[in-house]
Amino acid sequence: MTEKLTGGFTLPGEAGYEDLTLQLAKKWGADVIRDSDGTELSDEITNSGYGIYSTICIIRDHNEWAKEHPQYLQQSFLMTQPVMATEISLSIHLMKDFFEEQFKVNDSADSLKYWEVYDRTSETKLAAECWSYDEKSGDVTISGATPFHNYTVSFLAYRIWEEISMYNHVTNNWDKEHLMPVDPRSSEAQDYMYGWLKNWCETHPHTTVVRFTSMFYNFVWIWGSSERNRNLFTDWGSYDFTVSPQALDEFEKEYGYALCAEDFINQGKLHVTHMPAEKKQRDYMDFTNRFVIAYGKKLVDLVHEYGKKAYVFYDDSWVGVEPYGERFPEFGFDGLIKCVFSGYEARLCAGAKVETHELRLHPYLFPVGLGGAPTFTEGGDPTRDAKEYWNHVRRALLREPVDRLGLGGYLHLVQDYPDFCDYIEELMDEFRTIKSMHGGGVYTLPVNVAVLHSWGALRSWTLSGHFHETYMHDLIHINESLAGLPVNVKFISFEDVENGALADVDVVINVGKAGTAWSGGSAWKSASLVAKLQEWVYKGGCLIGVGEPSATEGFADYFRMSQVLGVDEDTGAKVCHGRWQFDVDETLAEQLIPAGTVIPKKEGIFLTDGEAKVFAAEDGIPTAAVHAFGQGKGIYLAGYQYNNANTRMLLQLLMYAKGLSFAQNYLTDCADTECAYYPNSKKLVVINNSDHVQTTSVMTETGKKEFTLQPFETQMADV
Amino acid sequence: MTEKLTGGFTLPGEAGYEDLTLQLAKKWGADVIRDSDGTELSDEITNSGYGIYSTICIIRDHNEWAKEHPQYLQQSFLMTQPVMATEISLSIHLMKDFFEEQFKVNDSADSLKYWEVYDRTSETKLAAECWSYDEKSGDVTISGATPFHNYTVSFLAYRIWEEISMYNHVTNNWDKEHLMPVDPRSSEAQDYMYGWLKNWCETHPHTTVVRFTSMFYNFVWIWGSSERNRNLFTDWGSYDFTVSPQALDEFEKEYGYALCAEDFINQGKLHVTHMPAEKKQRDYMDFTNRFVIAYGKKLVDLVHEYGKKAYVFYDDSWVGVEPYGERFPEFGFDGLIKCVFSGYEARLCAGAKVETHELRLHPYLFPVGLGGAPTFTEGGDPTRDAKEYWNHVRRALLREPVDRLGLGGYLHLVQDYPDFCDYIEELMDEFRTIKSMHGGGVYTLPVNVAVLHSWGALRSWTLSGHFHETYMHDLIHINESLAGLPVNVKFISFEDVENGALADVDVVINVGKAGTAWSGGSAWKSASLVAKLQEWVYKGGCLIGVGEPSATEGFADYFRMSQVLGVDEDTGAKVCHGRWQFDVDETLAEQLIPAGTVIPKKEGIFLTDGEAKVFAAEDGIPTAAVHAFGQGKGIYLAGYQYNNANTRMLLQLLMYAKGLSFAQNYLTDCADTECAYYPNSKKLVVINNSDHVQTTSVMTETGKKEFTLQPFETQMADV
Repeated sequence: MTEKLTGGFTLPGEAGYEDLTLQLAKKWGADVIRDSDGTELSDEITNSGYGIYSTICIIRDHNEWAKEHPQYLQQSFLMTQPVMATEISLSIHLMKDFFEEQFKVNDSADSLKYWEVYDRTSETKLAAECWSYDEKSGDVTISGATPFHNYTVSFLAYRIWEEISMYNHVTNNWDKEHLMPVDPRSSEAQDYMYGWLKNWCETHPHTTVVRFTSMFYNFVWIWGSSERNRNLFTDWGSYDFTVSPQALDEFEKEYGYALCAEDFINQGKLHVTHMPAEKKQRDYMDFTNRFVIAYGKKLVDLVHEYGKKAYVFYDDSWVGVEPYGERFPEFGFDGLIKCVFSGYEARLCAGAKVETHELRLHPYLFPVGLGGAPTFTEGGDPTRDAKEYWNHVRRALLREPVDRLGLGGYLHLVQDYPDFCDYIEELMDEFRTIKSMHGGGVYTLPVNVAVLHSWGALRSWTLSGHFHETYMHDLIHINESLAGLPVNVKFISFEDVENGALADVDVVINVGKAGTAWSGGSAWKSASLVAKLQEWVYKGGCLIGVGEPSATEGFADYFRMSQVLGVDEDTGAKVCHGRWQFDVDETLAEQLIPAGTVIPKKEGIFLTDGEAKVFAAEDGIPTAAVHAFGQGKGIYLAGYQYNNANTRMLLQLLMYAKGLSFAQNYLTDCADTECAYYPNSKKLVVINNSDHVQTTSVMTETGKKEFTLQPFETQMADV
Repeated sequence: MTEKLTGGFTLPGEAGYEDLTLQLAKKWGADVIRDSDGTELSDEITNSGYGIYSTICIIRDHNEWAKEHPQYLQQSFLMTQPVMATEISLSIHLMKDFFEEQFKVNDSADSLKYWEVYDRTSETKLAAECWSYDEKSGDVTISGATPFHNYTVSFLAYRIWEEISMYNHVTNNWDKEHLMPVDPRSSEAQDYMYGWLKNWCETHPHTTVVRFTSMFYNFVWIWGSSERNRNLFTDWGSYDFTVSPQALDEFEKEYGYALCAEDFINQGKLHVTHMPAEKKQRDYMDFTNRFVIAYGKKLVDLVHEYGKKAYVFYDDSWVGVEPYGERFPEFGFDGLIKCVFSGYEARLCAGAKVETHELRLHPYLFPVGLGGAPTFTEGGDPTRDAKEYWNHVRRALLREPVDRLGLGGYLHLVQDYPDFCDYIEELMDEFRTIKSMHGGGVYTLPVNVAVLHSWGALRSWTLSGHFHETYMHDLIHINESLAGLPVNVKFISFEDVENGALADVDVVINVGKAGTAWSGGSAWKSASLVAKLQEWVYKGGCLIGVGEPSATEGFADYFRMSQVLGVDEDTGAKVCHGRWQFDVDETLAEQLIPAGTVIPKKEGIFLTDGEAKVFAAEDGIPTAAVHAFGQGKGIYLAGYQYNNANTRMLLQLLMYAKGLSFAQNYLTDCADTECAYYPNSKKLVVINNSDHVQTTSVMTETGKKEFTLQPFETQMADV
């Protein structure tokens, strides 16, 4: 029996539960103890010889200073819902739609100059003389309105309750003071925070790692006035909470043109991450990203001066901290911590350019989970939850390792769940073994996949937030499948294609609803992009398109890649056009589609030249087809959902695209199982991704090996 | 017992079956005998004392002349499917995609000047120097192509096989000479046809009515080269088969600007009737309509000179003959004959401004029906078919009468179907009784409905063709329901709204997929249209929106009427926006929705201000909602299908919209039955629209009356 590995684990400690903390630190092999949002560590813990992570959210916890300097609170543009005028005068109460505990109108002179009133019926901006704001009532009154037109007011509001604090209050019934978010944009706020952090470092000698949560600006989360519609808007990638008159003024100086409210408000749609960004939005993101890094680096340097390490938790106030942003290494962080529900999040963390990669596992040690389902409380089953999350994460870690795992929350909650404590011990053993095998790399099929979308590498693996927030986008399902497949994956933008990024690529995947950032929207209007991709496929590449790939208006085809894919979509203008009859190619279907796959139907899909081989169809509409194109091919799927069978189908399509035989070494022959082979140690790891017993065999260099795996089990074998 | 009514019936006679013809003429109470496409009348029949209709299709049956004057055949623009260049030269065979028996390239000089070659990747037209046509090979060769761009050629082709002749050959295995369609655009063709008709009139003294089928230009039906894709395009309202170099030249002279191939080709989409028409298309339609009427009137006048009547059959070559076109009465037709499968077609005919209205019933006396299903052949059940069609038509005739019914086809086929012969006798008795009661009008609820779409009155009742060709559009389902409801219905365009058409309207209905002619597309960009409708509803009107009513891109809302409807649709840009929670208002649901209704779900529908009362929902998405708006209201349905229960729901929504109590006189209390009351004769007609026995009661001025009706039965009662 080999010696049990330890380390690589971050335990959430809790003052008042010192014995439990130290006992579980031993059981789970922790080398680090951390505090969490809502818990503290006692001296007994910090002096116990473990590394100590201390959680800091630099922009909150300064209510006293914030109250003295309310002009330095963070801000956002808000737009009132359209209101119809019935006569020539119309009053709109600005805060009618919004949560009063989150927002306060900023009616200072430098703010007012950015306010805008729009006639949304004619989509025209009103001149400033046509409206006025009354501080007392909080109303904007429009004079000279056109009766029966609809009007909106876009205004700046201070955010008076930091959103994570707000969420925790509501979800966990906290009853503390509402924390206010300070905007580091002003030199006054920067000086204050810097001094505060300096003092903090001096007074926390036991802390070995300062864990920033995260930097300054939260993802955008706008709450409404009605309990029936509390969540007005959530976008985990949006920069809208970074705005202020000062930021706008500085932007204008730097970029030579001014942004206005409408550049953010966008008719009330705001600019969601799932839609393609235009130049102004990209400029503003760039501007803000540079600011976050510049000031963030100062804080990281300060931490380093005290001999501590600086890790960043990539969640909550993560705006400007994108780990795949070009400038991310400039922060100088020593580690990146990513909370994970899914495999793609593990890959996101594992591939970032930073020394230490750590995953914060779920469930969080809270009575309830995200979405309010019970966890460590009656009705909850935290062990089941942990197994399911680990099941998604594990397969990603077989492909690319991270350095550490951790938990977060109130440790005392696990006391009543001994099976949970045992399971985490088992999970950590598994993690350490997998990690130890990665030296020398993992065996990978010779297939280079490029996922093509508007954001490219910046949003590698993720779309914007977690799986349960983005499940309606097929691409997150594709990414989740890819996270554990034995192929090379990169994420590229349309500009990258024009700049030669296809040279080393075997398969391009383009996925999504028409007009989205994922499908690409108007990027596809570029003739040179279309020609480049057509040429690349014609000369041997393969394009896999899912949903409405390459769709844009204004051309003969709706899918600009329809010549390659052999299918297109009718959006209404071709309702009178006939459709090619076809038979499903059953031989191909049997070859490409494992049992248990689900491919949803998409209305309006039709064959272009009748040459595509359809390998799945529903109600006479093709749902899966392959189309020869020169030396390459196009493959179309009407939709994609992440599950074991579909994941295997995707793998097979990738192999088929590259022209590989499916009889490869180091593949299981059962879609509910997967494996990874580590040539250096000659170890084979086989996992069961299902909650049933599974039997599978794997061809290796030394012959076929058989495995029977318990639900969710991991087995290792020598080759 | 009252004397049996006779007359008002047109019987298809058949030479060789004189006894049968005269026997059935008596049985069915015919006053007129007609010939059909494929049959002739013998002297014995024409001399039998009945009125005689003779069917004429003026543009075919002239093959000898056509062969001598091939330059006067009808033409059409065709576009080759996009072909990708792989080098700088590319050849495209023009006829590759098209049915050689239907089309022949017109490569005359006056045609070639209209040809266009497009780079569809960059969407740019190539200069004429960049391509050439080789008559021998039938290829266009492009020099200087951009490799990996896609190219199309738009060219003019003669149509060498008239489409109805083509269809009948294929469907009924005819083996006659292919008839060629002559274009009356040239004075030579006009003179020839005029002379031919003059001669025809002189040699057909027994004919009392010349039945034109229809005028000159067939609906567009483009056949493809592959048997797997024979039907490339069918549009029953399109004008594309009217084009020729002469027509284009004359258009330019008259309108001061030239049309080009692309104005017809539209990137290969062509201009389908289901999409909004732009100005050029409307100008061209107007131009052609005036031509059809001008020359048509000459022919009608000629017929009148011979003491005969001129009826027009509104099908087949119907382009330019729209009965609700402003200039239709200028033709001088004495009658309009409409073939009917559905109630809306009966209303279309009944409401046209012409002296005699006649319906040509289905089934047609052919071995197989449209679509190839058996009728008068093994496996067919013509009596069942006749009952089902009559069931749709009857309820429309209760609302608005026509003057005559008729049949068409090969009479001898009915010999083996005595129950069919009995049923037609019964049906005719029923028809004559209903017709006789209409004097003095039918009792109608005080509800004025306006169906609002791009085409307005021009396409009253119909969209484009028959129900089974347009079933994918919700509006045809709405129209079919309305055809038998006791309300007043008109059809208006967006221009009509701007010009005051809402003054006498209680309910506006707007129905359809975004961007279509039915929903309205970019018409909704007009601020004054939006304001007019908002004002009208605010002051007491009701807008019923179905599917994607008033949808257009570019504004704060996707449904421009979302303020009225209380719902809007997210097309992707609002995926991060929260949604109002709601409960289904069960009281309202019970009030408004009869048992058996089906309302399909539409993804992306959400409540705007949370004030709408949802009365149906699926998976948390509203499918039916009502929203108070000033003194009026908006009602939204996610979709609509024609069936008895939904028809009753629509009636109830109309009454609710107008604020009427549902406890009205002269309504049945069972959704599978309907009734009509004729105040003059104090007669109540109750019909069973189902194939089951139904019991219902009807409140009348003299108390409640009870009815038990056999499947599809009609009953009459005195009030």
